[in-house]
Amino acid sequence: MKDELVNKIMDELTKKLGNIETAKPEAAAKAVEDCCCEAGCGLTEFVGTAIGHTIGLVIANVDHQMHEKMGIDKKFRSIGILGGRTGAGPHIFAADEAVKATNSEILKIELPRDTEGGAGHGSLIIFGAEDVSDVRRAVEVALRELDRTFGDVYGNNAGHLEFQYTARASYALNKAFGAPIGKAFGITVGAPAAIGVLLGDTAVKAATVDVIGYSSPANGGTSFSNEVILTFSGDSGAVKQAIIAAREVGKQVLVTLDPATELKSTTQPYII
Amino acid sequence: MKDELVNKIMDELTKKLGNIETAKPEAAAKAVEDCCCEAGCGLTEFVGTAIGHTIGLVIANVDHQMHEKMGIDKKFRSIGILGGRTGAGPHIFAADEAVKATNSEILKIELPRDTEGGAGHGSLIIFGAEDVSDVRRAVEVALRELDRTFGDVYGNNAGHLEFQYTARASYALNKAFGAPIGKAFGITVGAPAAIGVLLGDTAVKAATVDVIGYSSPANGGTSFSNEVILTFSGDSGAVKQAIIAAREVGKQVLVTLDPATELKSTTQPYII
Amino acid sequence: MKDELVNKIMDELTKKLGNIETAKPEAAAKAVEDCCCEAGCGLTEFVGTAIGHTIGLVIANVDHQMHEKMGIDKKFRSIGILGGRTGAGPHIFAADEAVKATNSEILKIELPRDTEGGAGHGSLIIFGAEDVSDVRRAVEVALRELDRTFGDVYGNNAGHLEFQYTARASYALNKAFGAPIGKAFGITVGAPAAIGVLLGDTAVKAATVDVIGYSSPANGGTSFSNEVILTFSGDSGAVKQAIIAAREVGKQVLVTLDPATELKSTTQPYII
Repeated sequence: MKDELVNKIMDELTKKLGNIETAKPEAAAKAVEDCCCEAGCGLTEFVGTAIGHTIGLVIANVDHQMHEKMGIDKKFRSIGILGGRTGAGPHIFAADEAVKATNSEILKIELPRDTEGGAGHGSLIIFGAEDVSDVRRAVEVALRELDRTFGDVYGNNAGHLEFQYTARASYALNKAFGAPIGKAFGITVGAPAAIGVLLGDTAVKAATVDVIGYSSPANGGTSFSNEVILTFSGDSGAVKQAIIAAREVGKQVLVTLDPATELKSTTQPYII
Repeated sequence: MKDELVNKIMDELTKKLGNIETAKPEAAAKAVEDCCCEAGCGLTEFVGTAIGHTIGLVIANVDHQMHEKMGIDKKFRSIGILGGRTGAGPHIFAADEAVKATNSEILKIELPRDTEGGAGHGSLIIFGAEDVSDVRRAVEVALRELDRTFGDVYGNNAGHLEFQYTARASYALNKAFGAPIGKAFGITVGAPAAIGVLLGDTAVKAATVDVIGYSSPANGGTSFSNEVILTFSGDSGAVKQAIIAAREVGKQVLVTLDPATELKSTTQPYII
Repeated sequence: MKDELVNKIMDELTKKLGNIETAKPEAAAKAVEDCCCEAGCGLTEFVGTAIGHTIGLVIANVDHQMHEKMGIDKKFRSIGILGGRTGAGPHIFAADEAVKATNSEILKIELPRDTEGGAGHGSLIIFGAEDVSDVRRAVEVALRELDRTFGDVYGNNAGHLEFQYTARASYALNKAFGAPIGKAFGITVGAPAAIGVLLGDTAVKAATVDVIGYSSPANGGTSFSNEVILTFSGDSGAVKQAIIAAREVGKQVLVTLDPATELKSTTQPYII
């Protein structure tokens, strides 16, 4: 009977605790189902939602005062808006696939300091086109890509690691990181930032890559996040090798700050 | 007897969980009773507390080294200090009423990136006067106004919406947002920032208003918060109409990111 | 029997809640045991961990691309890396002891906006030397000092107070705060920032000290944290007296925002 009681109470608790856990800093990257609630779907501007408290929206005819204050050329009559609370790298790499796959351009990439109490960024990405169907398609592609680009994000209560790779960088990566267009490109991210320094050094020693940038909490490239980000391009195999070496080291180091929690991919690792 | 036990345990838990819940990112704007605990009230500098982990303080004779390092004119012998963990718009609009109602001036408005893990700002507002009774009165008015100005703040685990309106902007709104003094003025805020873009576009299409500013995570106007803020002035009816249209859309969109939670006013909506 | 059951369930809960509590904004500064898990200790770069989700690492031979992108002189073949999610003052004062005690230099001090949902900073500090044993020693000393330098950090759900004192400032304090080398130096920190203003004024009125700097959320010296920091030097006794007076007032004021929680030192107060 005792156990029965314990179970009963644990059930009630689990409901309560479940709610709280979604608010935990490093557990922020919770999967949100593709939405089809009556509320959201009633608006033509609504495209969908994705992991990381991410939302996709479109505006078919941007108001002229908005064009002006946002600093967007009026030829982009329609804009697509992709933004979330958790995730910058995943969103930028997803947006890169979106511009490759559609007739749209990247107008803005802004990184708020967010992740819902975690150590990193959220994101706000604006696509532009003359036709709303083009930006809608871009937002759809990006939302769908996020499941993949969160694959090499690993977090625990102490921080997170992120790795991204593309065989061919396009305009989103060029705008955000200065990636050479058409070349293989990768990033390593470690938080707390101390870990990111080691990841960067490990990556560049593991293969012959060209370092594009080093971003740190107060030296530019971040919005005061607790991350160090290294970005590099090179031969496809070398970029991948650099990332894999850094990932191996990063996992060993981050786990020392929270030994009780197993370090798992947010979705499924894609860099193999 | 089982139920009795369950209740007993749930009581103990509720105490523990209550503590934790106040630390939940989006639940940050918890009401804090006007304090009269022996501790706080023992200090003559203490004025009171309010919603959003907000505190009000006064200093009757500011030290000359503080005057100099803070960059405050020495004619302001006394300062009033209003600051909180959660809320910038509510505090600025509350401070605007305070300067209208008292013989004090607004010396500083600073917006930390805060909200206790949420997507927005906290605040630090400094009032100045020659006489301490004037700044004390200003802080008292502002603390009391916060209950109203949190009325059109709506939050869930994914983000928040904020709407503010005044029929006649005064010096606090002019200093913080460049609001034309004496005119009706309003703001729309959406977080994550993607939602704020849509709110802004909705507002300016709904009525004839003059857009004063567009603030976004990394383009100025925010302290890297995950918000887009649109500010506008115009005829009283038009400003209100713009806000109400944006609020309607905002609620439909934010709920898609956290469908399980009902979106409610932090206190009582005041824009009607 | 009831009590037995209650205890049993509370035990299970405490395990679950314990996990959650480490994610609570203001409870972030949890002690993490000096690590000797197989994982972390396998890497020669790993030095140890400490309170505040802090990690210490060394790189014996920094890659030349990293040297360049980090903006570090190549004569510093080896670097030591100290960084954490919670704490800037404690880390800078700990690093100051480390440079006094070892043959290493302070190359970088960067303050991310962090504290895991709290109101303050995390930190990234880079030591440099020609020999890896020197930077390893510096990181070891700093990790060990953290237990002391967290001693006058006091937090509750609403904010935190921090006080630091040294009888003789060295190069880390000079680099971070402009502290005159060799003189007694102290800081007062209050969050939310409103409390920090009062702490500063209280400190400078309590003793004859020279104010070095006033940092606030958006006026420089912070990374948009919700803190006001006052830094000052002077005679050893005066600096201590200023701090102790501010600490007394700070505790009375911060408790008004969260009267249910007792305000305790994170470890053991050291300024006496």
